[in-house]
Amino acid sequence: IPDLIHRWGMDWQAGDHILLTDCEHQGVIAAVEEIARRFQLEVSTCPIQATLNQGDPTAVIAQHLQPRTRLVVLSHLLWNTGQVLPLKEIVEVCHNYSASSQPVRVLVDAAQSVGSLPLNLTELEVDFYAFTGHKWWCGAAGLGGLYIRSEVFESIYPTFMGWRSIITGETGQPEGLQPNGKRFEVATSAYPLSIALRSAIAIHQQWGSSQVRYEQICQLSEYLWQGLSQLDMVRCLATSPPKSGLVSFVLTNGQSHEQLVHSLEKRGFLLRTLHNPNCIRACVHYFTTTSEIDQLIEAIVS
Amino acid sequence: IPDLIHRWGMDWQAGDHILLTDCEHQGVIAAVEEIARRFQLEVSTCPIQATLNQGDPTAVIAQHLQPRTRLVVLSHLLWNTGQVLPLKEIVEVCHNYSASSQPVRVLVDAAQSVGSLPLNLTELEVDFYAFTGHKWWCGAAGLGGLYIRSEVFESIYPTFMGWRSIITGETGQPEGLQPNGKRFEVATSAYPLSIALRSAIAIHQQWGSSQVRYEQICQLSEYLWQGLSQLDMVRCLATSPPKSGLVSFVLTNGQSHEQLVHSLEKRGFLLRTLHNPNCIRACVHYFTTTSEIDQLIEAIVS
Repeated sequence: IPDLIHRWGMDWQAGDHILLTDCEHQGVIAAVEEIARRFQLEVSTCPIQATLNQGDPTAVIAQHLQPRTRLVVLSHLLWNTGQVLPLKEIVEVCHNYSASSQPVRVLVDAAQSVGSLPLNLTELEVDFYAFTGHKWWCGAAGLGGLYIRSEVFESIYPTFMGWRSIITGETGQPEGLQPNGKRFEVATSAYPLSIALRSAIAIHQQWGSSQVRYEQICQLSEYLWQGLSQLDMVRCLATSPPKSGLVSFVLTNGQSHEQLVHSLEKRGFLLRTLHNPNCIRACVHYFTTTSEIDQLIEAIVS
Repeated sequence: IPDLIHRWGMDWQAGDHILLTDCEHQGVIAAVEEIARRFQLEVSTCPIQATLNQGDPTAVIAQHLQPRTRLVVLSHLLWNTGQVLPLKEIVEVCHNYSASSQPVRVLVDAAQSVGSLPLNLTELEVDFYAFTGHKWWCGAAGLGGLYIRSEVFESIYPTFMGWRSIITGETGQPEGLQPNGKRFEVATSAYPLSIALRSAIAIHQQWGSSQVRYEQICQLSEYLWQGLSQLDMVRCLATSPPKSGLVSFVLTNGQSHEQLVHSLEKRGFLLRTLHNPNCIRACVHYFTTTSEIDQLIEAIVS
């Protein structure tokens, strides 16, 4: 949810432009299209998917900025191909885009990156970074978070407001917004979920730092990628080891992706099919074992 | 949150008017003011507080409708005085208001009424009825619900959208909204809280029907109201027994409301002060006991 909050909160003018990539989740696309419908905005999509193995995603984005572009919406870690975008470079290009009279903000769908990549958001200088707690953090379903860069904080209004967003005067009437992030809180929060997420994060931290966990994820996904690459019936989308825990591949023997995923599920392996590109996606976390990966490879072959 | 969702979702035009009552919660006022700021709407407030003991709230609202009124925002059960508004009558007046070229919708803040009043929303013909699960239902914090009358459903767009709101085509791209209430779901929901609320409701139902529980609430609040009314130092706001579990009163002996509430809290009684009107509010549920009420009265006196 939080990534959507600020999209309504921007001071949109008819004709403003939002740039999406061709790798965004359908939920993000739907949300952007609704904002566009409501405020008569232009939306376009740039071809980033083809840069998985060659090409420069930053250059693609740079080429698709327009004088009326006010927001670029992209994922730090692409949910379909597992590619990690060079976020710092992209943000620099957007922030330095001089053809626009208004700043070009960068909103990141961090669904796959929070809890899997080591992050330094102030160094990345990203404007908005929205995540969910139930994916890589393995928190309880239903809680997410939104980071807003302090420089843009004052230009954004909360879409939703409630008694926690505001300062009240002596008569109990609203007298203004809270000076800090509280203005984005509405009313009674989901405290049980918040405590669950904090506990989940604390458990992950016991295993090792985010850098150490990320390196372990990459080692394991490389192990899986190599195992898959050795199969005649499989072609991995990435031609080099993935830099994330997402390993996407296609079957080259004519077998249906749905059928394989279904039969793997019966044996306890949870993979998923994707439409764009048409592939199967496996996912390893730092706590996945090489033995589990070996068993998956065997199950795919048999 | 849900009561705010649809306010953004209406097709607002600059100059449209929202009517509030003077008994709404500051969080609701702040949300309405933000919508007004965003879409250049007019907001006005009608004096319903004074109808607690005499006068007709429906007539007050009828007098304050304007040709550009599109939404009336009020509480079914006023959080400050405990008054129950005649919702069916009010809705009828709003829906039959002929000076407006557009329908006047009624949005109800049901924070105090859901879980305490017996309800038949289709009979009430209310357009929007938004509640929270943690108050009278005693559910886990962080979950609410929104009822939308089927007749207005198609004219409302979700403010927030995600993969659960939409129908996707064969390529996984959004192709439209879900035909039912799913369009107001965004993405992964707070399932743990949802299950907690359902369990809480099931436990309440074991005690008796909503009608039976409401009658018990009224009996107990009358008992409290009578006890308070017999004290020289206290004046209850209502001059007849409350029709809800909220019993508001003022101290007539010059003692500070804050001080009394604070000293009661130390003895295990949780009451609260209110600013408008300036009073103390006690609250009884169906499971409150007369013995607890006796102890509260004693604690106030001593």
